[in-house]
Amino acid sequence: MRATLIYGLGDVRVEDVPDPVIESPTDAVIRVVLSCICGGDLHSYHSWTDSNPKRMGHEVIGVVEDTGADVRRLKKGDLVLAPFTYQDGTCSFCRAGHTTSCLHGGYWSRFDGGQGEAVRIPLADTSLFRLPVGGDSELLPSLLTLADVYGTGFHAAVKGGVTEGSRVTVIGDGAVGLLAVLSAQQLGAEQIILMGRHCARTDLGRTFGATDVVAERGAEGVTRVRELTDGLGTEIVLEAVGHMPAYEQAIGVARSDGTIARVGVPQYEQAPVGNASLFGRNITLTGGVAHVAGYVERLMPAILDGTVNPGLVFDRTIGLDEMAAGYRAMDARESLKVLLRP
Amino acid sequence: MRATLIYGLGDVRVEDVPDPVIESPTDAVIRVVLSCICGGDLHSYHSWTDSNPKRMGHEVIGVVEDTGADVRRLKKGDLVLAPFTYQDGTCSFCRAGHTTSCLHGGYWSRFDGGQGEAVRIPLADTSLFRLPVGGDSELLPSLLTLADVYGTGFHAAVKGGVTEGSRVTVIGDGAVGLLAVLSAQQLGAEQIILMGRHCARTDLGRTFGATDVVAERGAEGVTRVRELTDGLGTEIVLEAVGHMPAYEQAIGVARSDGTIARVGVPQYEQAPVGNASLFGRNITLTGGVAHVAGYVERLMPAILDGTVNPGLVFDRTIGLDEMAAGYRAMDARESLKVLLRP
Repeated sequence: MRATLIYGLGDVRVEDVPDPVIESPTDAVIRVVLSCICGGDLHSYHSWTDSNPKRMGHEVIGVVEDTGADVRRLKKGDLVLAPFTYQDGTCSFCRAGHTTSCLHGGYWSRFDGGQGEAVRIPLADTSLFRLPVGGDSELLPSLLTLADVYGTGFHAAVKGGVTEGSRVTVIGDGAVGLLAVLSAQQLGAEQIILMGRHCARTDLGRTFGATDVVAERGAEGVTRVRELTDGLGTEIVLEAVGHMPAYEQAIGVARSDGTIARVGVPQYEQAPVGNASLFGRNITLTGGVAHVAGYVERLMPAILDGTVNPGLVFDRTIGLDEMAAGYRAMDARESLKVLLRP
Repeated sequence: MRATLIYGLGDVRVEDVPDPVIESPTDAVIRVVLSCICGGDLHSYHSWTDSNPKRMGHEVIGVVEDTGADVRRLKKGDLVLAPFTYQDGTCSFCRAGHTTSCLHGGYWSRFDGGQGEAVRIPLADTSLFRLPVGGDSELLPSLLTLADVYGTGFHAAVKGGVTEGSRVTVIGDGAVGLLAVLSAQQLGAEQIILMGRHCARTDLGRTFGATDVVAERGAEGVTRVRELTDGLGTEIVLEAVGHMPAYEQAIGVARSDGTIARVGVPQYEQAPVGNASLFGRNITLTGGVAHVAGYVERLMPAILDGTVNPGLVFDRTIGLDEMAAGYRAMDARESLKVLLRP
């Protein structure tokens, strides 16, 4: 079968790879119907230096093609969603909904890739979610966002503690930032300030519920947010970028005693946390790799009944032959998020 | 009057200074009955290099000696507690109990010092707490802990989210760490692991509610805590030291998706927060300068009715003439916390 590999900086190729097969009795192999490129993939696109190429893609909707002997809840032909982790569904972390901390789980993208024709998913019964729609449903792009970006935006809002009447700043106008806006709106936020400078994206952010847009960055952006918030900043800041300037901006716009929830994967390890940044103002730093599998059941109904349309983040659809162009478009910020029909 | 000053590394002197006087109509001047030396004072004791000496002390019980024209709730002769901040009691932060973030508040120790004969407190009506006991009450040392160390330990437990059945690690066997143990016990924690190596202190920690004591530090200490917690660490870690090894230890003993609440003033600004430390395991970092004034009314009843005796942290009492010896004893860890009767 064919799949997407990154060989090095900006070097994306689609090549023949071995078909995935059942390796453990709890595995399933699914044929990919829809996949996509993630903002997170761009980190590899920029930095991959290993001599072995990296298989890409971790968001998939597909049809079950084969199941191991111990798979009970799924059968061949089921249309399923595969979030980016697998998990046992039974350990103390899974029971608490903290699926990325599963004691027996992991990232299937470490050994497989969703930007291809098929993929093997371990612990299939608790890692794949059957979709109550047909393979031709117009809802599929929205449902695909449950595999990562929507659940990740929602994780930010949950960890940030968004509730009825909250005032929130969202940093980043990528798909995760925009879906953090949607999530904050769903959880009842009263004011949602979106920091982003790409008009088409911030317009979509307004559609999702942003009440204010701040295009300025750095100190200027901080000043602008403070002007919108009695000079004090917002109690909740959702940081959906992952670079140090976004972290610093988050501290700047956070109200004292507020919370910064990060879901942009940090491209730094050390950061300011002392008296001059977090400690002196009792600012809480939270967030992390989102428990997206734990949010699927909670978020799916509003997609199915049409209340929300997170699939609006996809602004381009490609086939496998166009992967290199798809990466280029996302990297150049010409595309917000690229859908793949392999 | 006489007061305590630090001139430089280890150089503590008691000297004549001007008597404090009413400077603003909301001020009060109080005559100090009890004060003490704080673990935080040792940071200045080790690092003061300014050419001007620093007035020391920020925890006081005293008798009101004079009040400004606008002070309504206090009168001459009242026995009062002065926590380390002053605040207006009316701003949005004060109303939320976040007293150290008060829009018009601050630290009176920036211009005055409690380790002396008298002190001026701004915004007296909302910064001083009348004590319902006599000036000779045996409860005064316990009540004095409400000025900082007890409220600070309690802040850690509150920000850490301690509740019925919580499993908690407390890092540090100083007065704040031990009172974080007491606070965790009061809030219903089921397991309280105290990390400390000073036997007399950890014994007091057991009196306050510690269920386990781990004397080992660093990687060895982390291993020991994990052995006590199914290999996973505790959901809540209260860090009451402020040095980098304690921060690293906190990450080591924190369960995935857990919370580290810091109340030890960080002696660092940068720290690990990325994928390899906080983010990858969804660990929340919270805490800060404790809202002690906001906790006084909540914590005082259990002292008055004898349920708790946080004053056990004082293991030595001195007069003003013995200040240098008092600092030496605390610095050498010969004394846990030194009480001053000026």
